[in-house]
Amino acid sequence: MTAQVQIDQYQELMKRYNEIHHLGSIAQLLQWDQEVMMPREGGAQRAEQLAALQKVIHAHNTAPPIGEILATIDFNADWTDEQKADLREAKKTYDLATKVPADLVAEIARLEVLTTQSWVAARQSEEYDDFWPLFKSTLQRRREYADAIRGERCRYDALLDLYEPGETSANLRPLFAELRTQLRGILEKIQGSSHPTNPAALVTEYPEEKQRPFSEKVIQQMGYNLKAGRLDVSAHPFCTGTGGDVRITTRYNKNNFTEALFGCMHETGHALYEQGLNRERLPFPAGGAASLGIHESQSRMWENMIGRSEPFWEYFYPMLKEQFPTPFNNIAPDEFWRLINHVEKSFIRTEADEVTYNLHIIMRFEVEEQLLEDKLSIDDLPEYWNHQFQQDFGVTPTSLKQGCIQDIHWPAGIFGYFPTYALGNLYAAQFYNTMTQQLPVNELLSKGELLPIREWLREQIHQYGHTYAPGDLCKRVTGKPLSIQPMLSYLNEKYGKVYNFS
Amino acid sequence: MTAQVQIDQYQELMKRYNEIHHLGSIAQLLQWDQEVMMPREGGAQRAEQLAALQKVIHAHNTAPPIGEILATIDFNADWTDEQKADLREAKKTYDLATKVPADLVAEIARLEVLTTQSWVAARQSEEYDDFWPLFKSTLQRRREYADAIRGERCRYDALLDLYEPGETSANLRPLFAELRTQLRGILEKIQGSSHPTNPAALVTEYPEEKQRPFSEKVIQQMGYNLKAGRLDVSAHPFCTGTGGDVRITTRYNKNNFTEALFGCMHETGHALYEQGLNRERLPFPAGGAASLGIHESQSRMWENMIGRSEPFWEYFYPMLKEQFPTPFNNIAPDEFWRLINHVEKSFIRTEADEVTYNLHIIMRFEVEEQLLEDKLSIDDLPEYWNHQFQQDFGVTPTSLKQGCIQDIHWPAGIFGYFPTYALGNLYAAQFYNTMTQQLPVNELLSKGELLPIREWLREQIHQYGHTYAPGDLCKRVTGKPLSIQPMLSYLNEKYGKVYNFS
Repeated sequence: MTAQVQIDQYQELMKRYNEIHHLGSIAQLLQWDQEVMMPREGGAQRAEQLAALQKVIHAHNTAPPIGEILATIDFNADWTDEQKADLREAKKTYDLATKVPADLVAEIARLEVLTTQSWVAARQSEEYDDFWPLFKSTLQRRREYADAIRGERCRYDALLDLYEPGETSANLRPLFAELRTQLRGILEKIQGSSHPTNPAALVTEYPEEKQRPFSEKVIQQMGYNLKAGRLDVSAHPFCTGTGGDVRITTRYNKNNFTEALFGCMHETGHALYEQGLNRERLPFPAGGAASLGIHESQSRMWENMIGRSEPFWEYFYPMLKEQFPTPFNNIAPDEFWRLINHVEKSFIRTEADEVTYNLHIIMRFEVEEQLLEDKLSIDDLPEYWNHQFQQDFGVTPTSLKQGCIQDIHWPAGIFGYFPTYALGNLYAAQFYNTMTQQLPVNELLSKGELLPIREWLREQIHQYGHTYAPGDLCKRVTGKPLSIQPMLSYLNEKYGKVYNFS
Repeated sequence: MTAQVQIDQYQELMKRYNEIHHLGSIAQLLQWDQEVMMPREGGAQRAEQLAALQKVIHAHNTAPPIGEILATIDFNADWTDEQKADLREAKKTYDLATKVPADLVAEIARLEVLTTQSWVAARQSEEYDDFWPLFKSTLQRRREYADAIRGERCRYDALLDLYEPGETSANLRPLFAELRTQLRGILEKIQGSSHPTNPAALVTEYPEEKQRPFSEKVIQQMGYNLKAGRLDVSAHPFCTGTGGDVRITTRYNKNNFTEALFGCMHETGHALYEQGLNRERLPFPAGGAASLGIHESQSRMWENMIGRSEPFWEYFYPMLKEQFPTPFNNIAPDEFWRLINHVEKSFIRTEADEVTYNLHIIMRFEVEEQLLEDKLSIDDLPEYWNHQFQQDFGVTPTSLKQGCIQDIHWPAGIFGYFPTYALGNLYAAQFYNTMTQQLPVNELLSKGELLPIREWLREQIHQYGHTYAPGDLCKRVTGKPLSIQPMLSYLNEKYGKVYNFS
């Protein structure tokens, strides 16, 4: 084939992926609407809408002309890095889609709506009779889906690869084992500290209408463009969309201002990634985020490394005091910083501190492996969860909401996703370490200058989308492969100061 | 073919239309989101989303298996009325879709988003430079669309038939001529009245947070199920969705409580129709509303015949007084009723009273015929509009917002739609007249018992969807074909009382 034919074929592919991208973004919007706006009785229709739409996307993804082009195009021709990545992702998407029956795709989409709707209702009423059968079907369909696509891999790895390309459970197991050991070590030092923290000092009334403007101020200062975004309320905070329409949600706890504030910073970290992608390449196969782990590195860095840092509050604490004279007029800045970094074993992952957070993830990784590989049934999940939790955290949940039904992921059919949260934390620490060597981060934070930080992230990470695999991106940005060391150094240094150990 | 083969074919068709229905309902949701939620910079992406989606729907609508079934199935077999209607609508949809190129469908969808977004911005800034070229393209594409589908018909009739099946401009012209003459006669009597109304008495501050609960009370009492709906704010009020998810919007005018209240009642009239359709038949080709005119009959009946009636306010006026002691403690009930029925020639259609409203429609009907048939260009539209308006209303708009750019319809590419508003008014009066013979309407209204009215409408009209053509439905419900007489009697009687003439 001549070079021109190659280029024409590439462009024909991209034309098709342009439509697929826009149809996919409609599915995202339907899910946003479901969580944020949809009236209660809209669920049945939403399930059918998403089933029909996912079937259409599946048909587009498996269109024979795509297969024909991918079979003849020369992957080793003189492509740019971006084009090479587009072809790589196109081939991966096509190979994956052609292995899955359309009806299974539609059924999974349908069940995702029905089961998550039932999950919301069940958590409210604490009656789970309608929920369990749907939850079981959801897991069963996911097992079938994994079998369809796994080839030589185990089910878990087939699903994990959807969220964290190239990652495997064999790779994660020793990494997580070491991480768990180290985190337990830090946790022991904290629990033995002669200088404990008492977060009860932060508990008071924080009216939502006073929380919201403060959160808005912070996320706008981070550089979140709200003319291309929105902030709403939902049961489970999330970020969705891309390009000119990137929306985040939060939830307000009237006795705890940190939940909405750090939640907003977290979701804005995701939003800045989406807003920082190369707009022209958005509809291309490699135009989106590099992985969910890289995505999470952005949200966790803003939430924790920045949002729970001392210099950040040098600038923002006076404003917070102005908004909430009680209790902050009576709390010194350094004590405030210690309080927002309080470490404690707790039941709920999303409320966990930086030290215990990854222990929640590692436990979920182990539980979902059992679920996927038929070693654990949904019937036995609550008991198994409680047993594992007792082992890891030394306490037993007293309700399903506090235990295995706390997260939306599994009811939504999302198994193999949790490890990306731990990987995100590790990537965040490693990126942040490099950033502090290239930018006067603490000085910027103490002046409330957050835009240079966003720019650094945009330049080093966001603009590339998925041109590079996550591991390769990490090496490009930090010069080294991913390791747990930056995270451990960060935690030891920070919490040594908070809890006065070394 | 055996009967079983016929039934199998019918069911295969319905399976396909089930998916088409759900994809179409996604397009509706995207439009709702665009008007109510979408951030400003989301327009370009929304245009591509809708273009991609409409292309998919078009491909589904023109799928060869549909054509094959429609070519062989026996339309005269022993079908139920509903099945007959499904086949009739399936054939109409298929014949229409196969005449239109997919690219034109996508382009019209894209332009609709871009032009309406530009319309909103232009009205705010009163700078129309970006808007005119988009508006021109919108009209041009609609002309092409009409040419593609019209066959022997004129362009106008081809488009009109999309909204009011079976209606023609040849039929409307004498109807509208007579209606105009009669309305002018009523208007003259009102203008000559020795007992005028002065709506300035209603002008005061009505805070939005006090308007909203009152409107919500009324629309819930009408029987609008808000667990299957929502009430939001948008620039142009509308109702969208069907079945378990029917949403309405309104806008609040802080000096005029009638705008939001009657707007809410109007949109709830539409919503009750959608919520009253037979849920099981919703995805079928004839499962939706009979026509836009019938739809509008529901909204206008609730807004005007009920909402602006004396007995309705017997029940609700005490509540309104409680919510707004000023000004209503100083306005007697019968005077209040006269004030909300104030008649005046005004620039804005959506704010027009019952007498002048149809004059706005008739003028639009004439203008859009000119636009479609190449007799009038967009460049000449403002001047032509003002000239016609001066003729009909005796005043000339001083801005585009007050004139030809006041409605969203034409910028959205919707030409041939306006007559359905006038037809809706006529159907409303005729239905209402029958209803008052079968139900003690005034007595119910005076006790705030609105549900029996909703039930009558549901039983007589809503449940049938599009099983019957609008004209046939009218005959079934009222025993007579549509006529302007019930409307004229209603107006003469009511306004004779308001303005003291006979």
